[in-house]
Amino acid sequence: MTAQLGGPVDPARFNAVELIKVKRDGGTLTPEQVDWLIGAYTSGVIAEEQMSALAMAIFFRGLSPAELNRWTAAMIASGERLDFSTLSRPTADKHSTGGVGDKITLPLVPLVAACGVAVPQLSGRGLGHTGGTLDKLEAIPGWRAALTNAEMLHQLEEVGAVICAAGSGLAPADKKLYALRDVTATVESIPLIASSIMSKKIAEGTGALVLDVKVGSGAFMKTAEQAAELARTMVALGRDAGVTTVALLTGMDTPLGLTAGNALEVRESVEVLAGGGPSDVVELTLTLAREMLAAAGRTDRDPADLLSSGAAMDVWRRMIAAQGGDPDAELPRARETDVIVAPTDGVLTSLDAMAVGVAAWRLGAGRARKEDPVQAGAGVELHAKPGHRVAAGQPLLTLHTDDPSRFAGARESLAAAYTIGESAPAQRSIVLDRIDH
Amino acid sequence: MTAQLGGPVDPARFNAVELIKVKRDGGTLTPEQVDWLIGAYTSGVIAEEQMSALAMAIFFRGLSPAELNRWTAAMIASGERLDFSTLSRPTADKHSTGGVGDKITLPLVPLVAACGVAVPQLSGRGLGHTGGTLDKLEAIPGWRAALTNAEMLHQLEEVGAVICAAGSGLAPADKKLYALRDVTATVESIPLIASSIMSKKIAEGTGALVLDVKVGSGAFMKTAEQAAELARTMVALGRDAGVTTVALLTGMDTPLGLTAGNALEVRESVEVLAGGGPSDVVELTLTLAREMLAAAGRTDRDPADLLSSGAAMDVWRRMIAAQGGDPDAELPRARETDVIVAPTDGVLTSLDAMAVGVAAWRLGAGRARKEDPVQAGAGVELHAKPGHRVAAGQPLLTLHTDDPSRFAGARESLAAAYTIGESAPAQRSIVLDRIDH
Repeated sequence: MTAQLGGPVDPARFNAVELIKVKRDGGTLTPEQVDWLIGAYTSGVIAEEQMSALAMAIFFRGLSPAELNRWTAAMIASGERLDFSTLSRPTADKHSTGGVGDKITLPLVPLVAACGVAVPQLSGRGLGHTGGTLDKLEAIPGWRAALTNAEMLHQLEEVGAVICAAGSGLAPADKKLYALRDVTATVESIPLIASSIMSKKIAEGTGALVLDVKVGSGAFMKTAEQAAELARTMVALGRDAGVTTVALLTGMDTPLGLTAGNALEVRESVEVLAGGGPSDVVELTLTLAREMLAAAGRTDRDPADLLSSGAAMDVWRRMIAAQGGDPDAELPRARETDVIVAPTDGVLTSLDAMAVGVAAWRLGAGRARKEDPVQAGAGVELHAKPGHRVAAGQPLLTLHTDDPSRFAGARESLAAAYTIGESAPAQRSIVLDRIDH
Repeated sequence: MTAQLGGPVDPARFNAVELIKVKRDGGTLTPEQVDWLIGAYTSGVIAEEQMSALAMAIFFRGLSPAELNRWTAAMIASGERLDFSTLSRPTADKHSTGGVGDKITLPLVPLVAACGVAVPQLSGRGLGHTGGTLDKLEAIPGWRAALTNAEMLHQLEEVGAVICAAGSGLAPADKKLYALRDVTATVESIPLIASSIMSKKIAEGTGALVLDVKVGSGAFMKTAEQAAELARTMVALGRDAGVTTVALLTGMDTPLGLTAGNALEVRESVEVLAGGGPSDVVELTLTLAREMLAAAGRTDRDPADLLSSGAAMDVWRRMIAAQGGDPDAELPRARETDVIVAPTDGVLTSLDAMAVGVAAWRLGAGRARKEDPVQAGAGVELHAKPGHRVAAGQPLLTLHTDDPSRFAGARESLAAAYTIGESAPAQRSIVLDRIDH
């Protein structure tokens, strides 16, 4: 199918206004119409204002499974498609829909590589309250995100693990459409989210894919129903494109681990690779690793063994060094800290992920606009998680930033972010559901 | 209210994406938000792709009466507002939502002026299958559509009747938004249609307004329900802006009169002014004239008298001459004609307005793009109307064009446009409903 896609666009083949009307009025676009829409948009024949009207019509009307498959295929065909079939190992990748303190990619990629499955992870930067994997790794002195395709292939063969920036050649239609959706309030559409994620992951050339779909206050999807629909939609797209795809729904009401912020999260990830680290981060890392190994057909090794043996740490050090980073370098620390203490004795019953994410962002860990810089050392450190007993005056949260004028905004975000009660809340498993079809 | 509108826009006062989300998710925009949206769009702070997403959200979610009132007021406030309160006569205007063969404005404006009510008719050009009043009048040698505001006021005082092009100063927000809606499939939204029409008519400064809302195959509104909703929406907007407004729903399943085309329709209009002309055109002209006079508070004169006395014709001649036209000049005729004859004996039971409109357009009477020229002589002449008895071989339609290569396309449009049966269809009044609140 994709062989017919991505060719030159005949501007007169269809009429953009007529095709917007089809979708607006609840009709179904033919495969040829979908190909034309994506091709003509990528080449500028369809204007931005026409695509934004179409995106809003899709927000209301959705896309049928056949339309969505073709839409995703056309986005893939708008650019290059990587091919790792020459590697001596199978490949698997993971995608998270984004959460607060979600540093799982950092320990997970070297762990899976240590188990014999190569991981070609193309990542992005953070925007808003969720952090970006590249921003986190750039806290490591010397580390660089940009690799050529040849460098990526070489590193995958030699180290088995790559985390790098997606080149501009992958799914350019998605890049253009994502930027448009961001300014036209058309981000929150399940078919548009699913095709955006899956077009990049399929074009990236991974053989297997595990999706970590976050649910909760700190996630894009606030309810399990929405998250499950997104997961099912993406799993179907992966399957139809020949990529073994599984999705886990995981909780994001409270931050993952004990840190949110770039260098803070790298430090915590290294603790996990050293055999320590917060139990929720370890649990989710191992769960996702097992899913990735199973999806890639390597069920002979238990990632828990490779974590405790130090093999995953070895791959981490080689992966960081291969991209110019010094795995032994001191990580940056923020110049200023501020501590929030527990006001009373009791049990921490909730700590809101979104509030912590916004606080970390306001402290300088994230950016408001694509072109903003981030502070490597900024962020929030947690001294207790929901279920932990706290005493009045005991530190709950430490705020880190180079710019103390930012403390007030962060404290404002955190003012109503936690509750202290009498007894511990019911413990919920971090994995809420598993969707594989 | 309008005094606060139309001022400088603070770009940072609201966030366009947040406001699009409000409407997308079914919320209601505040008056301040509506003002900001229209002002920021007019001044370019809101990008075209953002306004098209908002227009599509409005297509799905609608606007509340309060939102629509403010939206219309903000569009009026985006430009100048004419004021005819210094005139010695009351003013009234008419707007038609557009139909095939709808030349009513031509005899109606001088007729109402002859009855003592001034008519400041700002018209447009045709696009697609419906003709434009200015295109029709431009078939008269020498006539010019462009007047300054001072010329318009002078002619209204001296002649009582003006039909001219709307200047660029009236509702510039509407001009920009209409062009955008045209290319983004967001034309067919009742609040957007109503605010577009009413913002121009209210800004034009008329004291009373009669709306001719067409219903049927040749009209924009295909059903009486849609047309009534549009009519009620516009009547409410007019009333709230202090303009006495009445709407008639009139049938547009078959063309009005016996001609569709620019010079052809001028000729038919002059016949009506001379006391002849097709009965449906005469009936609708008199009905609309009575409504305009009543809305302007002049019920002392019967327009039928002014038509038969020749007084309306006198005003017509002065109105054309005042704008450089020669009322005695020979009207252009197309170089070529082609006749479609009745295939059998019987009664013409239907003649589809849309098919005739498309045929006239294809013959050169209308334009596909704003910048296209039109042929003055092109169009379709009807030799029978539904209900008339026809004999096999008798001319049904004459096609007029300067370019005989256009006959094939026109004939194609007309191939299934008429039916001939045994007995006459039930006669329907041309006025289907009257809506005044």
